[in-house]
Amino acid sequence: MTASETLPAVLDRVDRDLDQSLERLFALLRIQSVSTDPAYAAQCRKAADHVAADLKSLGFDTSVRPTDGHPVVVGKSLGGSADGKAPDVLFYGHYDVQPVDPLDLWKTPPFEPRLETLDDGRKLIVARGACDDNGQAMTFVEACRAFKAVTGKLPLNITMLIEGEEECGSKHLFGFVRDNAAELKRDLALVCDTGMWDAQTPSITTSLRGLLYEEVRLICADRDLHSGLFGGAARNPIHVLADVLAAMHKPDGSVAIPGFYEGVKELPPDVKADLAALGLTPEKFLGPIGLKIPAGEKDRMLIEQISTRPTAEVNGIISGYTGEGAKTVIPSKAMAKVSFRLVAAQDPDKIRAAFRDFVRARVPADCSVEFGNFTSAPAFDVAFDNPALAKARAALAEEWGKKAVTVGAGGSIPIVGDFKTVLGMDTLMVGFALDDDRVHSPNEKYDLKCFHKGIRSWARILAALAG
Amino acid sequence: MTASETLPAVLDRVDRDLDQSLERLFALLRIQSVSTDPAYAAQCRKAADHVAADLKSLGFDTSVRPTDGHPVVVGKSLGGSADGKAPDVLFYGHYDVQPVDPLDLWKTPPFEPRLETLDDGRKLIVARGACDDNGQAMTFVEACRAFKAVTGKLPLNITMLIEGEEECGSKHLFGFVRDNAAELKRDLALVCDTGMWDAQTPSITTSLRGLLYEEVRLICADRDLHSGLFGGAARNPIHVLADVLAAMHKPDGSVAIPGFYEGVKELPPDVKADLAALGLTPEKFLGPIGLKIPAGEKDRMLIEQISTRPTAEVNGIISGYTGEGAKTVIPSKAMAKVSFRLVAAQDPDKIRAAFRDFVRARVPADCSVEFGNFTSAPAFDVAFDNPALAKARAALAEEWGKKAVTVGAGGSIPIVGDFKTVLGMDTLMVGFALDDDRVHSPNEKYDLKCFHKGIRSWARILAALAG
Repeated sequence: MTASETLPAVLDRVDRDLDQSLERLFALLRIQSVSTDPAYAAQCRKAADHVAADLKSLGFDTSVRPTDGHPVVVGKSLGGSADGKAPDVLFYGHYDVQPVDPLDLWKTPPFEPRLETLDDGRKLIVARGACDDNGQAMTFVEACRAFKAVTGKLPLNITMLIEGEEECGSKHLFGFVRDNAAELKRDLALVCDTGMWDAQTPSITTSLRGLLYEEVRLICADRDLHSGLFGGAARNPIHVLADVLAAMHKPDGSVAIPGFYEGVKELPPDVKADLAALGLTPEKFLGPIGLKIPAGEKDRMLIEQISTRPTAEVNGIISGYTGEGAKTVIPSKAMAKVSFRLVAAQDPDKIRAAFRDFVRARVPADCSVEFGNFTSAPAFDVAFDNPALAKARAALAEEWGKKAVTVGAGGSIPIVGDFKTVLGMDTLMVGFALDDDRVHSPNEKYDLKCFHKGIRSWARILAALAG
Repeated sequence: MTASETLPAVLDRVDRDLDQSLERLFALLRIQSVSTDPAYAAQCRKAADHVAADLKSLGFDTSVRPTDGHPVVVGKSLGGSADGKAPDVLFYGHYDVQPVDPLDLWKTPPFEPRLETLDDGRKLIVARGACDDNGQAMTFVEACRAFKAVTGKLPLNITMLIEGEEECGSKHLFGFVRDNAAELKRDLALVCDTGMWDAQTPSITTSLRGLLYEEVRLICADRDLHSGLFGGAARNPIHVLADVLAAMHKPDGSVAIPGFYEGVKELPPDVKADLAALGLTPEKFLGPIGLKIPAGEKDRMLIEQISTRPTAEVNGIISGYTGEGAKTVIPSKAMAKVSFRLVAAQDPDKIRAAFRDFVRARVPADCSVEFGNFTSAPAFDVAFDNPALAKARAALAEEWGKKAVTVGAGGSIPIVGDFKTVLGMDTLMVGFALDDDRVHSPNEKYDLKCFHKGIRSWARILAALAG
């Protein structure tokens, strides 16, 4: 029988096993795997061992691999697809969680998971990590478990990569992926660490914006000056910097740096139509933060501005006297931090060079400018014609009774970029988080419905990918 | 005999009495009259008493008048000009001095005045206050003394106003002047607290720029935002502020705020020619601070830019993340401090209103702006046709063998503005300080030549004013 033929039985098994699935998730959530605080190192190790043991019970060839930080769990399925037509997949997740402070804002202890029923009947799993990422990662594991229980095997060759440092920058994972490329390179990566569009609408994240982060340090006179004596003749670095920063955007909201949009693709019309159909209004998106008017490119939908279009933002600026009262100083120096959200086709190195040229062209000959760079991560996107994407969309639509949208995420998940650049594989990001999950905050939760239908969604996706 | 007829004898007396004049200055310089530090209050009182006793010995009706701070010395000459044609004058000076830190940089103790002879033969009076303002004020007092010695009286009616809080903002003097307006209002004020153009060229300061100091606080979203999630759609207050500040100047260096130059007068052609003849080059003025290119109005001489033209400067700016490394924040708020050097005819209140309108017009409808004001002092200038000005210029030229220039000072001496607005009198600012006098710094000095010829200069000016 094909995976699709066995799917009804697998889904039935998911439904019947839900209480046990929840028990297994709770067992994981009781481990205090806070990765950023060295005091919790043993708990992180305990979480890795726990995940490894669970994967072993599903037939994965599992190992807990040391790094200079917290260990990485790697599991390789044996058997699986024999015909070689179905893709081999790498599933990425993380067992570490965010710190719990401020602890006094939690209604119940963060590592004592519980099920809470709201007045409207919604059931919530409440604990640190309930959603990010233990709850989400377990939707995939539980889908695998259901296949194993019904068919005795997994529908695909699956490699599991569950790390323990996502919440503190994944800093040892980059080297680990490079060092173990052969073991981890598969046809496709799957990640469950993103959200739904809303509680009814499933979503696949098909692009992540990259990031280029620069610091600009302008120097004019060789000392701070008194504006009474020098005002009018001495160059003021704040004026120079304001000129540069003001020139960075055109009146239409686009970025004015030459070559900035080079190679940036338009979305396919059907994808654009899907995005338009979501009806994300300024009221809905900007209202909650006290704003009304989208500030980006005037000829773009708000949802494009925040997800699929590149941006330039000044993240910080300082110069001169900023304390109480008045000081009539013309400062010697001024500094700004400027970052760019990049989309695929934009080369961070080229953009950096273009930005620096743009600044230098506006610095008077008797002043100087220095640059610093902090981050330079390319954007990532899945080709819209990747067949796995269509299969996953169809599977999600089947489960949720609603078309799955493809969206771009405004932020970046750096390791996904490495999956593409180092391992040469696309990533499908499918997740079931909701906007109100209080991820990284007190009283983190994951809707039981999201957990349940998340497991069913992955079962459907695995069956679809198996063909 | 007229004052002019007795002048040669008076100048001769000044020359013969120089050693005694120096001894009297040294006696004053030994008093530690640091006004800003309450620990020196008794020394300030001692300096006031010392000055009062000295003035009394010259026949002034003198009193030491208490304020809520350090006392003010007021002296009124009896007798003097009987014909009523010569102007009655008010001389303003201050007996207080700057703190002496860092003490270890002084070659000899700051309150042990000494005469130092340089290799080139120049003789320097070295002490705190040697120039600012005891040395300068004593040039006037010694000129009076010479007249008194030779003719038995002063050539004019003179009122002395010697305060003790100039170095800490003259804060009680404003009220004192208002409360004693009848006593202090004379035809003309004289001040000796400014400098020569250079060691050979005497100078009269005919204008002081006023100051308007504003703080601009912009608020966009009601919280700091993550640039990954909101970048591209949420208004960034740094962008708004950069747009405002960049728009504040035109490409020709002039200030773009509507009405800013309303009523601003051109200098008379002869004054402008005198200024041009001074040959102040960018190399000479900007070279020492590491700059080369004047930043002000392109069609103005550098000396105009720094003294007689109004300016707009950003003195400080802060927003967002300014620490080490990268933070992808879109800040909620941004702040800048903006100040304007004003010239006569510019009304600070009008300029403030115009500036605020200029900013408001550039703030998007969903953002808000708040303003704070710290200073609002009008500019001051002497009418170029004031007959006292021509007389003083001629007297100075006579003494120094070189035309006396009239210059504008970039900074402000607030009490001079009050002499105009409260007492309705012009002020002639004549001083003999040099650029290398290390005023406010360790090893403050005053050239003996400046002291000596300063006394002679005042003798000539008094004679000229007496007519």
